[in-house]
Amino acid sequence: KNRARLLIHCPDQPGIISRISEFLFSHDANIVASHQYSTDPEGGEFFIRLEFDCPELEAKFEQIEVDFQPIAAEFNMDWKLTAVRELKNVAIFVSKQPHCLLELLWEWQSSDLMANLAVVISNHEDTREMVESLGIPFYHVPSNKDIRHEAEARHKEILDEHDTDLVVLARYMQILTPEFVESYRNRIINIHHSFLPAFVGARPYERAYERGVKMIGATSHYVTNDLDEGPIIEQDIGRVDHRDHVEDMKKIGQTIERSVLARAVKWHLADRILVHQNKTIVFS
Amino acid sequence: KNRARLLIHCPDQPGIISRISEFLFSHDANIVASHQYSTDPEGGEFFIRLEFDCPELEAKFEQIEVDFQPIAAEFNMDWKLTAVRELKNVAIFVSKQPHCLLELLWEWQSSDLMANLAVVISNHEDTREMVESLGIPFYHVPSNKDIRHEAEARHKEILDEHDTDLVVLARYMQILTPEFVESYRNRIINIHHSFLPAFVGARPYERAYERGVKMIGATSHYVTNDLDEGPIIEQDIGRVDHRDHVEDMKKIGQTIERSVLARAVKWHLADRILVHQNKTIVFS
Amino acid sequence: KNRARLLIHCPDQPGIISRISEFLFSHDANIVASHQYSTDPEGGEFFIRLEFDCPELEAKFEQIEVDFQPIAAEFNMDWKLTAVRELKNVAIFVSKQPHCLLELLWEWQSSDLMANLAVVISNHEDTREMVESLGIPFYHVPSNKDIRHEAEARHKEILDEHDTDLVVLARYMQILTPEFVESYRNRIINIHHSFLPAFVGARPYERAYERGVKMIGATSHYVTNDLDEGPIIEQDIGRVDHRDHVEDMKKIGQTIERSVLARAVKWHLADRILVHQNKTIVFS
Amino acid sequence: KNRARLLIHCPDQPGIISRISEFLFSHDANIVASHQYSTDPEGGEFFIRLEFDCPELEAKFEQIEVDFQPIAAEFNMDWKLTAVRELKNVAIFVSKQPHCLLELLWEWQSSDLMANLAVVISNHEDTREMVESLGIPFYHVPSNKDIRHEAEARHKEILDEHDTDLVVLARYMQILTPEFVESYRNRIINIHHSFLPAFVGARPYERAYERGVKMIGATSHYVTNDLDEGPIIEQDIGRVDHRDHVEDMKKIGQTIERSVLARAVKWHLADRILVHQNKTIVFS
Repeated sequence: KNRARLLIHCPDQPGIISRISEFLFSHDANIVASHQYSTDPEGGEFFIRLEFDCPELEAKFEQIEVDFQPIAAEFNMDWKLTAVRELKNVAIFVSKQPHCLLELLWEWQSSDLMANLAVVISNHEDTREMVESLGIPFYHVPSNKDIRHEAEARHKEILDEHDTDLVVLARYMQILTPEFVESYRNRIINIHHSFLPAFVGARPYERAYERGVKMIGATSHYVTNDLDEGPIIEQDIGRVDHRDHVEDMKKIGQTIERSVLARAVKWHLADRILVHQNKTIVFS
Repeated sequence: KNRARLLIHCPDQPGIISRISEFLFSHDANIVASHQYSTDPEGGEFFIRLEFDCPELEAKFEQIEVDFQPIAAEFNMDWKLTAVRELKNVAIFVSKQPHCLLELLWEWQSSDLMANLAVVISNHEDTREMVESLGIPFYHVPSNKDIRHEAEARHKEILDEHDTDLVVLARYMQILTPEFVESYRNRIINIHHSFLPAFVGARPYERAYERGVKMIGATSHYVTNDLDEGPIIEQDIGRVDHRDHVEDMKKIGQTIERSVLARAVKWHLADRILVHQNKTIVFS
Repeated sequence: KNRARLLIHCPDQPGIISRISEFLFSHDANIVASHQYSTDPEGGEFFIRLEFDCPELEAKFEQIEVDFQPIAAEFNMDWKLTAVRELKNVAIFVSKQPHCLLELLWEWQSSDLMANLAVVISNHEDTREMVESLGIPFYHVPSNKDIRHEAEARHKEILDEHDTDLVVLARYMQILTPEFVESYRNRIINIHHSFLPAFVGARPYERAYERGVKMIGATSHYVTNDLDEGPIIEQDIGRVDHRDHVEDMKKIGQTIERSVLARAVKWHLADRILVHQNKTIVFS
Repeated sequence: KNRARLLIHCPDQPGIISRISEFLFSHDANIVASHQYSTDPEGGEFFIRLEFDCPELEAKFEQIEVDFQPIAAEFNMDWKLTAVRELKNVAIFVSKQPHCLLELLWEWQSSDLMANLAVVISNHEDTREMVESLGIPFYHVPSNKDIRHEAEARHKEILDEHDTDLVVLARYMQILTPEFVESYRNRIINIHHSFLPAFVGARPYERAYERGVKMIGATSHYVTNDLDEGPIIEQDIGRVDHRDHVEDMKKIGQTIERSVLARAVKWHLADRILVHQNKTIVFS
């Protein structure tokens, strides 16, 4: 269809919205959704997400990009224009636990994940069958700390081959190198099995059990080189009580993990997330 | 301060946002928040709420109103411009149960209710002391179905005297006449003690208990002449189980009622609610 | 393993727990969980669910049943003793929408549904593949109001053949006859796509949209002959706003439906639910 | 009325419930509620909370205590028998922020806090008026790290004078000494303004803002000498987004804090909480 999205980040100053909306109107575009945020109206950073309909978008797309450049330059904008009909290519990394992968496959199957699910990569064979049965390519790439660089070289080949826009770590239990993270900056989404910053690091459910918390959670975030410290996209929690042992917490946690990760991925695919410093702006 | 809000409702068509934002920019206004909604980009209804800062707003306010009229006429707009610093005058109606009144008093005391709490009117004396101790005028106006018109005549006198913008029914257990409702169209907020449309009418907790529901709720809505059928503003629920008798449900329900009503009132005061047909558009 | 559950319902009177616990102790059983409820300690109805471990349970099971009969008679008990290791046989009925079925299959696959998933019956072919790929028998039994009795005759054959303990209506869009309902009294669980008693009957999401509610829900209940009026087991809700159209509400609702139904089914399988008049007692 | 509660903790073994229930039956007591938990049926720790009605309880209370001692000795029990009608004496400590205090006063006024609200102690004068207007004694005891021991000496005098059973720290911003904590072991409840163990220590909202979390929380716990490390009683959370600054988070947090603290205090007053190692068992 003829819908596009324009994401902009620039220093705040009066007149930005006026200039953008005039530009869009002059290109026959009708704004159908608009979200904005400013860290401070005086001297702060300005963020806007616009969704608009434009007749014959495909034919005009490049011209719109060209025509917008002077405005972008004048206001010193970081910006991105995307056509809604062009689906992003998504690669999912998974280890043994399939619940987050399954949720994404499910959403994709029922047409709720507006993306091209391009490839699944795993350091184990466990999930091959469920992936291939849906006609999605599955690659088994063994990985551990001793062969990290070889593994990542192979990962990059596969990701390039599938022209990957977004990497989703759906309970992938291996560390990524800084080079890999840098090459997919703000395009790798991880699910951490605690309500960060509680229980940063390994074995969060075991530690939640030992601490005797009354709720457990999950956090999806963009991956940075500081482990579990990347910009948080979404979090949610579930209640536990004294009767819940570590295994019960893991079960309860899986339900939270899969819904939190699915929400984060869908927001990213809908260009709803802007990263500023170490935080996310999520336009709902 | 120099902040204002512009609420607009008009038929959707391209160019509205461009025209409004150009207008605001030409009046030195900086848009700091913007929310829009269209029932249908092609031939639907368009709604927008803009918040902007404008130097020397007070001096320029009337001129802005005058200058906006041609645009409003061109696009066939219903519109309202409000200065944030001008607090709305709120009247609270209450019967015997004080919990919703108390919540509003509390929010007001801690400066979270951006309003002038002008007057409390009750058909009982029970809450006089708590109201007057805060320096708020309290009027006892007896009311029942036999003296409804006399009571409302007195209500109107009091409301007029306090230049009332909003009437909040904080568990006020009397029916209002169509004339009264009409004179405060979309400016009377009620709290109903069920998750409407479940348990429309009287005794909702008793009926919830009899039905054996596992959650109870509360609904705040604008009052219309169709009992419990007005536009819903906000709803929330709480869990109950087989051990909860009617009295327990009432206690649990009170906590829900007071928070639901307080949210609805705050959104109204912040001009976040637009009514369209029998529904609300609530810009968060 | 050696675990069993004892469910009892009888008129309340002092001494019941003493008698039961003495009985269990005398049979070498160790009570590991106990939940009780009384509608009224004086002259009310008493309900208790006990879970106990007993060495060599399998060998002693029948003797325990025999030995308990005098106590049951003395206190006028309805009671049921079940061995935890004997899984219940579950039949799932489904029409076209697969989400609730999928959730149950998923839970079963990950060993979270402590049951024997015996058979899936549908009036459509849509879900055959996903069911059969898991090795579960799938029967296509066409049904509509004109051939209801023929269809149910076939249903009963299939259910009998698989020795079915529980029927789950996982979005099965056909009405059941009173005879069928009676033959599985308190053993048919349905999921209704609204927070009952709101939107009893057909097209609840459409009606929720028209009413402009701010939350939608789902309700699982035992099926009785009064449509949507059976004892409620579990309910939950999700938030919607003015931007959500009927289709969005259906998507949001599906997530609620599948989790609500799964919880209800799991509680039934764990013998946590007692039905009293038209309500459920759910021991958590 | 004639209701009492019996709380027991002992090594698990078969026959405990049988013995207790037989004992209660022989004293004409009717068990109206029973909750139990075992860390492990084989060699674990057993916990039970029983509520029972007993005609002429007041007259028989001491005899029941005497008669129970042999059983307690046989099973090596920690135990406590309380008469429901004997309200516990509660002291509230508060600094400047009144919201948690207000919630408790409110619950107490509406008869939902089953306790004798004996005294309020503060290191500031701010809340004196609201406390004294309800007829509750208010003591201003200045405190800071230099005069901690003098302050606590005065605290103890006041608490002794009012025969205090429970100390509630309703946003009391001073550290307590180990001696003080020891003298009210498992009888001091604090509210911490984060979902512990996230943001242990000072300024949790500021740190939550800096981290960019999407939910903030509150935790009530028994006070131990390890700051913010005591047994957690209850936690809850609320959602925040990128628009919420530190002050907004504090407002949202206050609502969570007051409800979390109130729940914890009510559960303690109802003898629903047992402490085991550094965790709580909360019988709902």
